[in-house]
Amino acid sequence: MTCRPRLAVDMDEVIADAFSAQLAWYCATHNYRWTADMLEDHHFSDLADPAHTAMMENMLHEGQFFRTLPVMTGAQQALRHLQSRYDIFITTAAMEYPASCAAKFAWLQEHFPFISPLNIVFCGDKSILAADYLVDDNVRHFRNFSGQGILFSAPHNKTTNWTPRVTNWKDATTLLENLHDTNA
Amino acid sequence: MTCRPRLAVDMDEVIADAFSAQLAWYCATHNYRWTADMLEDHHFSDLADPAHTAMMENMLHEGQFFRTLPVMTGAQQALRHLQSRYDIFITTAAMEYPASCAAKFAWLQEHFPFISPLNIVFCGDKSILAADYLVDDNVRHFRNFSGQGILFSAPHNKTTNWTPRVTNWKDATTLLENLHDTNA
Repeated sequence: MTCRPRLAVDMDEVIADAFSAQLAWYCATHNYRWTADMLEDHHFSDLADPAHTAMMENMLHEGQFFRTLPVMTGAQQALRHLQSRYDIFITTAAMEYPASCAAKFAWLQEHFPFISPLNIVFCGDKSILAADYLVDDNVRHFRNFSGQGILFSAPHNKTTNWTPRVTNWKDATTLLENLHDTNA
Repeated sequence: MTCRPRLAVDMDEVIADAFSAQLAWYCATHNYRWTADMLEDHHFSDLADPAHTAMMENMLHEGQFFRTLPVMTGAQQALRHLQSRYDIFITTAAMEYPASCAAKFAWLQEHFPFISPLNIVFCGDKSILAADYLVDDNVRHFRNFSGQGILFSAPHNKTTNWTPRVTNWKDATTLLENLHDTNA
């Protein structure tokens, strides 16, 4: 039995920049010129033509889009560093796009090779996770989670009320180091 | 927060008959004539020509094999019945064959449509599951699991020492009903 605390980390908008990749696709393909203000507290589907949203949905369902995502700034360095204190699990809600699993797995192998495949979890309801902390951009995953949810800032959650919140991986590392030292 | 106990259920050899499907393939394709005694406490890879095992491994990696598996006898009726007492999660170690996720998801949608996609978990290390019971054919998944492991009999675990053990879904239903009533 391990005595190290367990840290669960979401993928999209936390370690994988699905937002930037989708924004780039909407701009390049359909010439949208959204500002940061327009995107705040919105999903792309709130702003785009439904036909364009449907094309994006098709891409997401096909799965390979997830293989191409940029890594969120500082995520690799942060998780590599936090591995000295935490058992880290990557926990992603993949059931909306089941074909994305293989692409997400390959992406993790490439960008986070220091995370064991045994520590990758594709799930829907994240309350099934037995972990001490969950870093996620959606507060709905914190509701029945038995540990502490840590909200990772994203354009769609700018006005969501949740504490603690972190705005980037530097913040997250500081918070998680402090939580570890306080509870050690 | 739910107050119902949570039951985690493995797929292969528990609700999906991967054993029979692999046995049928080895017999039909390479003319093996294994008896039940020969298969006891063995995996196919212990008995088959390495070249044939490699062909099977390729099929497993390709993933579609998992779409075709027969349902284990009584599994549908049992899970449908146990849903009145338990929140049921299907928890399968898919990371060895990441391409199997989409096939396994489609298989579950066809044969267990009453299980929500949100309650499907693909993982490696099952100690990440926050559940009260785990029905599985591999005792290694019970080691760091915080709940009670229930061993589902399979040819490869015939002499494995574990209590409680169930030999089919009728047994499993009786045990899980008793456990529920005892702890209610």
